[in-house]
Amino acid sequence: MIYFSQSDFNQMKRIERANLINSVSGLKPANLIGSISGRKKTNLAIFSSVIHLGSDPPLLAFNLRPSDEVPRHTLENILENGQYTINHVNNQIAEKAHFTSAKFGREISEFNACQLTEEYITGFEAPFVKESHIKLGMTFVESIPIKMNNTQLIIGRIEHVIVPKNMLGGENNLDLSLSQSVAISGLQTYYSVQKLAQYPYARPNQLPDFH
Amino acid sequence: MIYFSQSDFNQMKRIERANLINSVSGLKPANLIGSISGRKKTNLAIFSSVIHLGSDPPLLAFNLRPSDEVPRHTLENILENGQYTINHVNNQIAEKAHFTSAKFGREISEFNACQLTEEYITGFEAPFVKESHIKLGMTFVESIPIKMNNTQLIIGRIEHVIVPKNMLGGENNLDLSLSQSVAISGLQTYYSVQKLAQYPYARPNQLPDFH
Repeated sequence: MIYFSQSDFNQMKRIERANLINSVSGLKPANLIGSISGRKKTNLAIFSSVIHLGSDPPLLAFNLRPSDEVPRHTLENILENGQYTINHVNNQIAEKAHFTSAKFGREISEFNACQLTEEYITGFEAPFVKESHIKLGMTFVESIPIKMNNTQLIIGRIEHVIVPKNMLGGENNLDLSLSQSVAISGLQTYYSVQKLAQYPYARPNQLPDFH
Repeated sequence: MIYFSQSDFNQMKRIERANLINSVSGLKPANLIGSISGRKKTNLAIFSSVIHLGSDPPLLAFNLRPSDEVPRHTLENILENGQYTINHVNNQIAEKAHFTSAKFGREISEFNACQLTEEYITGFEAPFVKESHIKLGMTFVESIPIKMNNTQLIIGRIEHVIVPKNMLGGENNLDLSLSQSVAISGLQTYYSVQKLAQYPYARPNQLPDFH
């Protein structure tokens, strides 16, 4: 076993510390966030920080680093027109999705640079990713500043869910192994998934014989 | 393809809506959060909402539902002594971890009920999960209310990281397939992972030939 504590973090190289701390929270969802500027320039960026906030109303959030550190085209677009899409990265597009994280100029669309295809639905401006299987149309709700490290939590409401029929199971459970949705750890490692088990709703008086 | 929008969400049964909306954010990390009360009663609960907030300082967060909806022993304990642990769920303990979500009374420790083993390190009060491979000792930093749906974001600082030597790769990247860390979708489905690829840091002028 290796034990790291505060003084070890402080002595690590910047990249060693970033890798370790970005890995320890566990598997992260790989999502592409699509957006469009007022001048109709599209943008696509990979995010690993999307979380479920609640089902009624249907809210998701993601975390954004300080705007002075990296250009934040995604946020600029979201604030301009209030819309964005969240698209699951799958095994087939993991490499293309990863390279959307390169710092392209504002005039370059990552859809073109990384060979992914824009897709639109009626009445919704932001671009979806055609190659993705599970796609969400979102409207911006609120940005919550996290003062402790100068990041912000971007909260959005799910307006549209687009899923292939065969990936939707009983009681609307999505099978993320059929959609070949991908998980991330750290900054550059991608994982494919296989279904391990589906357990029943947990009740204190109905515990299984654990083995 | 199936297209769901707001009016469809409204017409779904509560469980269908919860399953769908809890699945669409993508794969979620399965973590057990360990805590202890002022009277030394331990508590263990599974969470799928842990996210990375930043590496310097090393911060993670998780989302908590309204306290009037379900008893929140985890939060009570965290507020009492400021400490908690985050422990990766792995393939071997997924079933036990799932059943910590049953609504046990305050006097019952999920460590006992679900046959998981408490483990302690010197100078840190909160219990770790012995069967977990990747374990974090956390101190509470701040709770941020999310008014939109009456949840809260609990932010903590990583004080200790405990990992087996063989799971720590070059530049401190953790291999979450070696730790057999598990992902969740929806409320009850668990996935095991396999490493798909590790891509280099992305630069606009060094794009691969995508295939």
